[in-house]
Amino acid sequence: MAAKTGSGRFFEDYAVGQVIDHAVPRTVSGGERALYHALYPARHALHSSDVFAQACGLASAPVDDLIAFHVVFGKTVPDISLNAVANLGYAQGRWLRPVRPGDTLRASSEVIGLRETSNGRSGVVYVRSRGLNQHGDPVLDYVRWVMVRKRDPGAPAPAAVLPELDAVIDPATLAVPAGLDFTRYDFTLAGEPHRMADYRLGEIIDHVDGVTLEEAEHMMATRLWQNTARVHFDATAREDGRRLIYGGHILSLARALSFNGLANAQMIVGLNAGAHANPAFAGMTVRAWSQVLDKAPTAAPGVGAIRLRLVAGTGPAAPGELRDAGGRYLPGILLDLDYWALMPA
Amino acid sequence: MAAKTGSGRFFEDYAVGQVIDHAVPRTVSGGERALYHALYPARHALHSSDVFAQACGLASAPVDDLIAFHVVFGKTVPDISLNAVANLGYAQGRWLRPVRPGDTLRASSEVIGLRETSNGRSGVVYVRSRGLNQHGDPVLDYVRWVMVRKRDPGAPAPAAVLPELDAVIDPATLAVPAGLDFTRYDFTLAGEPHRMADYRLGEIIDHVDGVTLEEAEHMMATRLWQNTARVHFDATAREDGRRLIYGGHILSLARALSFNGLANAQMIVGLNAGAHANPAFAGMTVRAWSQVLDKAPTAAPGVGAIRLRLVAGTGPAAPGELRDAGGRYLPGILLDLDYWALMPA
Amino acid sequence: MAAKTGSGRFFEDYAVGQVIDHAVPRTVSGGERALYHALYPARHALHSSDVFAQACGLASAPVDDLIAFHVVFGKTVPDISLNAVANLGYAQGRWLRPVRPGDTLRASSEVIGLRETSNGRSGVVYVRSRGLNQHGDPVLDYVRWVMVRKRDPGAPAPAAVLPELDAVIDPATLAVPAGLDFTRYDFTLAGEPHRMADYRLGEIIDHVDGVTLEEAEHMMATRLWQNTARVHFDATAREDGRRLIYGGHILSLARALSFNGLANAQMIVGLNAGAHANPAFAGMTVRAWSQVLDKAPTAAPGVGAIRLRLVAGTGPAAPGELRDAGGRYLPGILLDLDYWALMPA
Repeated sequence: MAAKTGSGRFFEDYAVGQVIDHAVPRTVSGGERALYHALYPARHALHSSDVFAQACGLASAPVDDLIAFHVVFGKTVPDISLNAVANLGYAQGRWLRPVRPGDTLRASSEVIGLRETSNGRSGVVYVRSRGLNQHGDPVLDYVRWVMVRKRDPGAPAPAAVLPELDAVIDPATLAVPAGLDFTRYDFTLAGEPHRMADYRLGEIIDHVDGVTLEEAEHMMATRLWQNTARVHFDATAREDGRRLIYGGHILSLARALSFNGLANAQMIVGLNAGAHANPAFAGMTVRAWSQVLDKAPTAAPGVGAIRLRLVAGTGPAAPGELRDAGGRYLPGILLDLDYWALMPA
Repeated sequence: MAAKTGSGRFFEDYAVGQVIDHAVPRTVSGGERALYHALYPARHALHSSDVFAQACGLASAPVDDLIAFHVVFGKTVPDISLNAVANLGYAQGRWLRPVRPGDTLRASSEVIGLRETSNGRSGVVYVRSRGLNQHGDPVLDYVRWVMVRKRDPGAPAPAAVLPELDAVIDPATLAVPAGLDFTRYDFTLAGEPHRMADYRLGEIIDHVDGVTLEEAEHMMATRLWQNTARVHFDATAREDGRRLIYGGHILSLARALSFNGLANAQMIVGLNAGAHANPAFAGMTVRAWSQVLDKAPTAAPGVGAIRLRLVAGTGPAAPGELRDAGGRYLPGILLDLDYWALMPA
Repeated sequence: MAAKTGSGRFFEDYAVGQVIDHAVPRTVSGGERALYHALYPARHALHSSDVFAQACGLASAPVDDLIAFHVVFGKTVPDISLNAVANLGYAQGRWLRPVRPGDTLRASSEVIGLRETSNGRSGVVYVRSRGLNQHGDPVLDYVRWVMVRKRDPGAPAPAAVLPELDAVIDPATLAVPAGLDFTRYDFTLAGEPHRMADYRLGEIIDHVDGVTLEEAEHMMATRLWQNTARVHFDATAREDGRRLIYGGHILSLARALSFNGLANAQMIVGLNAGAHANPAFAGMTVRAWSQVLDKAPTAAPGVGAIRLRLVAGTGPAAPGELRDAGGRYLPGILLDLDYWALMPA
């Protein structure tokens, strides 16, 4: 009965240089913003208030940078990760332009690398995915690699092509939104007094609060991005009867929790690396901490770039305790992210 | 203590020809659209993207056709179905005009038929309900019949009046939105390559995915339409302690699931028949399939009308297995819908 | 690890006359309205329909008065009630100006009273909190008092200052929105025929319906107001593993239920007093009743002010049965509110 329904691409269906235009463009509105506030404890003032954003030189408040990420990511799922065994990593993510209510996003991906896995049953696909707005201007660009099943384990493997990926984005190449100016930044309205100079390299910030995950919430969040991968919604899809939570749900939750201690790290502009360390399920209580990895100036008035490691998990694990002796993430770790954010210098 | 609160209409309170103006007009916004995307895996491009809708000749993306249906239906509940024992059927539903963010909908119903049931304790009420926008233009029109309790079982029954209802809407009378043009339709952005000519009569499309129902989700969905029938929200209302899920929740879920295989059946324009075959409850995992019943041309460029049967249930029942020997729906069947949609010819 | 994260103010950190500007201004949109309709059975026509609001002399439909309350309240939490042991009461709340999609709200509080409790370990802090829109115009103003822990139980107590608080707002001082006119009020569209003259002093209205509380719903509601107090979200925060429901969630639920019998009490303009009588948890089924306490004219055409007591709880307790012999609320009572609303005279 399945002639008209897609079964997704398998490893053999990808070729280096192939460009895939993803389906279902999406117009965002104040509705997506309100839902984001309902689903995550998001409080960064620049995304919450038009007036605050205008005082920072922008025309109005952009939607949360992760809304742009999730919308673009969601578009890619049917073409890239429907048959993925694992979402292996992210690199070189850049936010290029704010997204505002009324904007329409579409996405495409270019295959930039392929490598069969040693057992011959699957392969790693590297794609650079790009989100564009209604003017054709890029809003977001990132590399992701996933392990994808082969349709036929006996199919011949293509020559391995591995993209060259920088471990960290050069901060001089980060895109600062046009007009952004933090010289008259209102720290009281933003919620915390700390500017970038107040953070020292290596400093760890415990974000204190915990949030217990609910089935209805992660499903609504994931659907909101039109990410319809079955494992997130169908309790019968896994043998254990549990719905796997979309990794991006943990990402948004952790970033929102990080307001407490990093309220002025207003905008995400670069994604250096990211790992969904372990699967997340409803009932878990998630906490997060951040570590300051680097700081850099930008050309925009009063605006600095801070590089942060954001770790989320179910326990209070400290930075030295994320992995076991074999290098695997310990069971309580859910997310390990490395990103650049803009904050008052 | 209940002098000021309504107890709803009983069978004796209806008369053929009576027109009931329903309360609480409603302005919809991008918020309703965003919630619809959060509650259902809805991906039809025409409802998701202003740019896609404009490329199809419309001014902007209308909200999902079922948003219009649910808003109008919700208005009718306090007057039509508060004392309903059963929602028996739908017929001759027509979507007459797209609804967009900013539109305000109100509704009225005309009683077009009455028939006492054989046991004398209730009766069937047939109404034609109509939704109007802020300009007084009709946006939706459908017939529904419900079994309603009598206040007094001894009350005399009115003469039975049964409306003449077509089993199927003549496709020549379907309302195609002004300006709709599928001649430059972008199948890549829409998500699937199949035009109407690619579907054969009788063809069955399995929509593959399953969704497990949650209490919070069906309650939020039902409230969103201001449908406040107690059985959906109050766990103490039924003896078994379960909240009955609004039939429209299953309808929207099934229609959204049908994207997978029918991505180009963009707009619902006619409702021929519909049955909520069995009650639905949280915890059930719902799947759906469709069957192609008919195809017809329309006067709009490139636009065809496809008649589909959409069946949702908790199991993989095939078309021949929906009813038992006595003609009753089998327990796993939740929805059996017959509708017309517009798609590229 | 907590150098950058705030631990909130303690009793010693407050001084009479101190003004605290709260963080994170917030722009509201149709998204917040849609979510309000999804989370509560809210049906007051003036907040639901632009067309209805315009027929009542307003430019468009304001968002629900309790949306304004919750947004302002949420802003105050990090500064006022993060270390609160109890939220003791409200007084002299006035809604001063409608809030509409597009408005940006910020908030400040002035400390107007302080009193150490007898055991010396905490103190009562009285604040007048104020919400302002993007023009600097006040939209809401109310007094709240909370019991706050001392950081150091041995710290000296300030001289007790107790604000003079009226038990009831003089209705002559209520702010009626500019232009409001109920002389051509449409009772059919509003949903009930009763005008203020139809309610007698002392009359009790049972709102009939019950709603069973869900974790996902109260958490989404509370986050929507950027109220991030840990006890509402973290199942590990309390010894019993239950998440405490934000009192405002019960308030909004009770007010929405009161539509059934008070559909024409369209706008809340005064909050005389309010108590969150007992903690609420998911799984409870909430019902509500109202009692008419007073009626007064206003200067606006056709507009009267009605003073209502709104009680919500898990059982059918009658007015005489709210407290035990010692004056404490009985366990089934959740909310006891005294407010002024505007309705057709």
